[in-house]
Amino acid sequence: MQARANARTNRQWQVARLPDSGGLTGGGLKLSADVFGQGEVDVPEPGAGEVLIRACWFSPDPMNHAWVRGMPGKFDPIAIGQPMKGGVAGRVLASNHPDWNEGDGVTGFLEWQDYTVSDGTDRLGAPLQRVPSGVPLESGLATLGMTGLCAWLGLTDIGRPQPGDVVLVSGASGAIGSIAGQIARIAGARAIGIARGRAKCDLIASLGFDAVIDASEGDLAGQIAATAPDGVDVFFDNVGGPMLDAALLNLAHGARVVVCGATAHYDGPTPVTNHLMLAMRGATMAGFFYFDHVARWAEGRRRLGEWLAEGRIREALDIAEGFAAVPDAALAQFEGRAAGRKLVRIAEDPFA
Amino acid sequence: MQARANARTNRQWQVARLPDSGGLTGGGLKLSADVFGQGEVDVPEPGAGEVLIRACWFSPDPMNHAWVRGMPGKFDPIAIGQPMKGGVAGRVLASNHPDWNEGDGVTGFLEWQDYTVSDGTDRLGAPLQRVPSGVPLESGLATLGMTGLCAWLGLTDIGRPQPGDVVLVSGASGAIGSIAGQIARIAGARAIGIARGRAKCDLIASLGFDAVIDASEGDLAGQIAATAPDGVDVFFDNVGGPMLDAALLNLAHGARVVVCGATAHYDGPTPVTNHLMLAMRGATMAGFFYFDHVARWAEGRRRLGEWLAEGRIREALDIAEGFAAVPDAALAQFEGRAAGRKLVRIAEDPFA
Repeated sequence: MQARANARTNRQWQVARLPDSGGLTGGGLKLSADVFGQGEVDVPEPGAGEVLIRACWFSPDPMNHAWVRGMPGKFDPIAIGQPMKGGVAGRVLASNHPDWNEGDGVTGFLEWQDYTVSDGTDRLGAPLQRVPSGVPLESGLATLGMTGLCAWLGLTDIGRPQPGDVVLVSGASGAIGSIAGQIARIAGARAIGIARGRAKCDLIASLGFDAVIDASEGDLAGQIAATAPDGVDVFFDNVGGPMLDAALLNLAHGARVVVCGATAHYDGPTPVTNHLMLAMRGATMAGFFYFDHVARWAEGRRRLGEWLAEGRIREALDIAEGFAAVPDAALAQFEGRAAGRKLVRIAEDPFA
Repeated sequence: MQARANARTNRQWQVARLPDSGGLTGGGLKLSADVFGQGEVDVPEPGAGEVLIRACWFSPDPMNHAWVRGMPGKFDPIAIGQPMKGGVAGRVLASNHPDWNEGDGVTGFLEWQDYTVSDGTDRLGAPLQRVPSGVPLESGLATLGMTGLCAWLGLTDIGRPQPGDVVLVSGASGAIGSIAGQIARIAGARAIGIARGRAKCDLIASLGFDAVIDASEGDLAGQIAATAPDGVDVFFDNVGGPMLDAALLNLAHGARVVVCGATAHYDGPTPVTNHLMLAMRGATMAGFFYFDHVARWAEGRRRLGEWLAEGRIREALDIAEGFAAVPDAALAQFEGRAAGRKLVRIAEDPFA
């Protein structure tokens, strides 16, 4: 073991400086490339009860921003010079843990470095998740990972689409929105996706959404009204701001608004003025914090895994290649350049 | 009958012109006195199955504004020269209806005139409501009327306070807020009221709220944090805008936000920027439309009636005297001059 590990290089992305931000509410969320600094550390040795993981994929999520800065009661801030953390998919290279074998596919919230050891839990204290045999590692971060589970949790537990409902999804070409719309269709609802620009709209259409609205054409409220003349039963919102305002004006009676994200906030505060429509339409708007719902993850992974295997959910992946691509891939999300699930392949799957 | 009715004068408040407004969402809601015009009509005669009602109290509600302009699918606009409609409490003077007797106390959504006939339903098609014997007519519009029921419905069905919860009420000196806070205390919660200025804050304190925040002292978010250091479990919001933003920053995990009204909108659009806190705190924000919950009214009236009789709910009434006082009483609500339930006494109770 010792010799093999030492022969390896363990590259690491670190926090070089804290991102400028007023936080998730109102202050803007923009990352910049100089937040990321590259370093190199020793390849760790798995001790008793530990596994050595070879990372193959990193997941640059908007939440990385919050993780760097910390969230009171949830995460401590990451100190300058310490490793960046985020979603990682990889393979178990060596295991002293009874639940894990060499070659197992694994995902978790871990340091962004080539090689990591774990006692079976990730850096949030959650159990490492197994990527089922036959499923590509990247699907463990996409459909079976945080973004797929966010789509499933938000739509299933808050949106609760019924057959025949109209489900409107903003940011529909994104990692979460693209899955949410497909789950809505599986539930028998009519899925309408909103995205900005022809390419993203074409992507949504290719995933089977029933209708597509191009936000770059303006008049969001009018476009939604024309596409959903009887109103929107479920609005799955990844955008906030004027998008949310336009959807609020078009809610059907008893509608449910799922507050999943707010990309509109990345550039600063984006107010909403139509919240009183919740009263006018007897509607509900609710958010969920992913890490509060650990108990639901297993069921979500099982359902999503079945739908993926049956071809009822298709993954739209936006893959960046190579360790050096991480900062730009993270920025791409904040700049609207990602279409589908943004992932960075930092190494080939050694067991593929 | 004929002779007696003809001897009376039947004054009527009419819609003289439509109020300026962009509607409930964003356009401002301000009434002006010249929206109201006074007229006089014949005293109607109750036909077969009808009752003749002597109106004693009018209820100038913010919703009157919407009623004048109409609400798609709910109310047609009131035409120029037609009678204003709103909450009315009065006495049955004559009855050809099997359910009603002379002297019965009655409330309903009716024309604002001295004498009205009804077939047992009001102008929204809802049954006329009986004011229980021994209860003053004005309580039929206050605690047992729309405002009391809105407080009960919103708090009970959406807020769902548990013993020990912190319930924050904005516009707490108002018709709805003052009742909502008292219901929260009956449920075993700690009730914090927010109002603007010393007089209104003193009013809240006199109703038994556990703590009072004076909005005129500024730093709403800081004041809420200091008063509810463990967060707000239920926010019953009558204000919207910066008030809602401040409360959103202070939600406890799993909090419920009741969207009851938005007085901040009376002067124009008042944006909210912190809605993403719903996701951070796994919180729910929901509104309700009073007229959708007719099936719950009877239970609400029964409970509120018991609490009123037991002295567990005290009414804060802000009474304007005389038929001519109607326009100013309506404007007072939009200008923040009302403290408690604003009512206009247009005639003495003939059976008091």
